[in-house]
Amino acid sequence: MIKTPYLLFLGDAPDPLSAKVAQGIKDWRPEYAVGQLRLDGCKADVGVPDMTLAQAKAAGVKTVVIGVANRGGTISQRWKKVLVQALEEGFDLASGLHNLLRDEEDLAAVARATGRTLHDVRIPSVPYPIANGEKRRGKRILAVGTDCSIGKMYTALCMEREMRARGMKATFRATGQTGILITGGGVPLDAVIADFMAGSIEYLTPDNDEDHWDLIEGQGSLFHASYSGVTMALVHGGQPDALILCHEPTRTHMRGLPSYSLPSIEALRDLALQLAHVVNAGCKAVGISINTQNMTDADARAYLAEVETRVGLPATDPFRYGAAKLVDALDTV
Amino acid sequence: MIKTPYLLFLGDAPDPLSAKVAQGIKDWRPEYAVGQLRLDGCKADVGVPDMTLAQAKAAGVKTVVIGVANRGGTISQRWKKVLVQALEEGFDLASGLHNLLRDEEDLAAVARATGRTLHDVRIPSVPYPIANGEKRRGKRILAVGTDCSIGKMYTALCMEREMRARGMKATFRATGQTGILITGGGVPLDAVIADFMAGSIEYLTPDNDEDHWDLIEGQGSLFHASYSGVTMALVHGGQPDALILCHEPTRTHMRGLPSYSLPSIEALRDLALQLAHVVNAGCKAVGISINTQNMTDADARAYLAEVETRVGLPATDPFRYGAAKLVDALDTV
Repeated sequence: MIKTPYLLFLGDAPDPLSAKVAQGIKDWRPEYAVGQLRLDGCKADVGVPDMTLAQAKAAGVKTVVIGVANRGGTISQRWKKVLVQALEEGFDLASGLHNLLRDEEDLAAVARATGRTLHDVRIPSVPYPIANGEKRRGKRILAVGTDCSIGKMYTALCMEREMRARGMKATFRATGQTGILITGGGVPLDAVIADFMAGSIEYLTPDNDEDHWDLIEGQGSLFHASYSGVTMALVHGGQPDALILCHEPTRTHMRGLPSYSLPSIEALRDLALQLAHVVNAGCKAVGISINTQNMTDADARAYLAEVETRVGLPATDPFRYGAAKLVDALDTV
Repeated sequence: MIKTPYLLFLGDAPDPLSAKVAQGIKDWRPEYAVGQLRLDGCKADVGVPDMTLAQAKAAGVKTVVIGVANRGGTISQRWKKVLVQALEEGFDLASGLHNLLRDEEDLAAVARATGRTLHDVRIPSVPYPIANGEKRRGKRILAVGTDCSIGKMYTALCMEREMRARGMKATFRATGQTGILITGGGVPLDAVIADFMAGSIEYLTPDNDEDHWDLIEGQGSLFHASYSGVTMALVHGGQPDALILCHEPTRTHMRGLPSYSLPSIEALRDLALQLAHVVNAGCKAVGISINTQNMTDADARAYLAEVETRVGLPATDPFRYGAAKLVDALDTV
C-alpha cells in the first residue's frame, strides 16, 4: 500500500487532461489530496492548495504522487530536481508512468540512501498465488463492459460513494494504474503473468464480512479480441455476486479494432452470467451503467428509458445522474 | 527457434516418467532426437543411441536439451559439469526447468565467453504485440478441454502426424514448455504478461497458405477457475476455424479444484463456439478427443460410441486409436 495522504505532482502538465490521475485522486479520495505542486508553465489545476515540499511536510503528507502523464512517458530533468528533493525530505514517490522510477539511476540511488520507497504501480509488487476457486465470504460486484474504456472504473467508484453515503460497507478494488494511485493499492492486472491473473483477483478480494461489498474495477471486455483473457480472469477470480453491465451507445466499433462492432447489452449479460455461474451459481446481472458523455441530456434520458424497458434492468449514467438506482438493485442479490 | 538436431540429456533421471520431455521429443520429432546422454544411475532410456558429447558433435547435433525434470527444479553440480563442457564444445543448451539456465552464474559466464545460447523456454523471449483481431489467411485448429491436462497437446500432435501422412500442410504450434522443446519453438503462454496473451497467439499463427492448417496446442480450460483467462486468449488470439473438444471421462473433479465438477462435452462445445464466433463466425466444432488411458479397450470403445451418438460428432482417442476420424472431420470446415 502507498502511504497517504498525498501531494499531487502536476509538473509542467500541458493541459488539464494530462493531469487526470491527479484529478481522479481529488475527485474520489479528496481526503488523500492535501495539495498540488506545479512547475512553471503547468496548465492544469485540480483545485487543491498549491504547496511547496516544506508546506506538504508540515501538512502531514507521506507520498508525492506523479499525477500527470507526460508525452512519451519519460521523467524529465525538470521533474527530477523536485523528485530527488522530495526523497531527501522524506517523502515516498508513486508513479503510474510507463518509464519506471526505479529505472532512473539517480532516483533509485537517492531512494536507497534515504530509505524511501519508489512505488511503480504499473508492475506487480506481490508474488500472486494460483487461483483456488474456493468460495469466499462477503459479496462482490464486478463491472463488465461491451467494450474497453467504457466507464467501468467510474461506475464502481460512483457506486462506492453512494453505498458509503448509505452506511453500507463498500470497498473499491483497483485493477488498473489509475485506480491504484487513487486508492493507494490494488493489482495492475494487465501486467500480471498469465497463470496468476485469476489468483491476483482472489488475493485482491479476500474473505470479508458477510455484509461487505467489494466493488471490483473491470478491465477489457469479454468481446474484445485483444484483452478478453484479462476480463475472463476477473470474472473467475472475482467470483461476483452482482454484475453491472456497462455500455457506451455512440461508439461505432470496438476500441482499437475497426472491423469489430460492439455486442448488445443482452449478449454481454448472457455471456458474462454464463461464465460467472462457473464460480458462483448465484450471480445476477443487477443493473446497467450507460456512459452518456457524448449525448445530450434529453437523448441520454430517452436512451436510458428505452434500455430499461428493453433489457428489464435498472439503467443510469452513474456519473451524470447518480448511482442510486444501481445500489438499490443490490437488494435483489 | 532452438537449433536442431538435439542430444537429449537425461542426467540421473530417477525413473522413466521424469524423462517425459525427452520421450516426447523422441516420439514426435524423432528426426531431432539423434542421441541421449545419461549419467551414472540414470533410470530412463528413450530408445535412441547413447552418445558422448564428442559423438554428438560428429553426428551434427546443435543443441543439448535437458529432457528430464528433476526434483525441485534445481540444476545439480553433477549436471553442471556436463553442461559447461557442452557449451565449451560449441553446443547451445535448452531447458524447460523452473530454475533458469541463465540464472546459473557459471553457465551464463561460459555461454557468454563461448558465444553459445541458453534457451530457457519457460519464459518468453519475444516482445509480443497486442492482438489486433484481424483475419489471417490459412486455417487453424484449436483443442479445447473440459479440464486442464486432459490430452490437448497429444491430440494436436496426433492430428499433425495423420495430416502430414496424408500430404496435408499442417504445423503443430506449441504453447507450453514441453511442446516448445519438442518442436524447437513456440509461445510459453502461461508466462506471458496478461495484456499480450492473445497477441502472442496471433504472432504464433500468422498468415499462411490457404490450405495450411495450424494445430494450436490448447492450455487450461474455459471452465477452470485458475486458468480460464489463458484459454480465452487462445480462443480469441487463435481465431480457430475448427475446434476439437477434449475430455477425460473418469476424472471426478477439475484438476486442482476439488469442489468443481467437470462440464459436459456439450457445455464445452456451446461455450467455446460462442466465444470463437466473436473472432471467426465460421468456426465449427468438428470432433471429440477422449483420453481413455484409464479405461479398458471395451469400455473405451463403448464410451466413444455413446458420445458420438449423444453429441453427434466423430469421437476417438487419437493416441490409442489414431486421429483419422478427427482429420476426416476437417472436410466439414
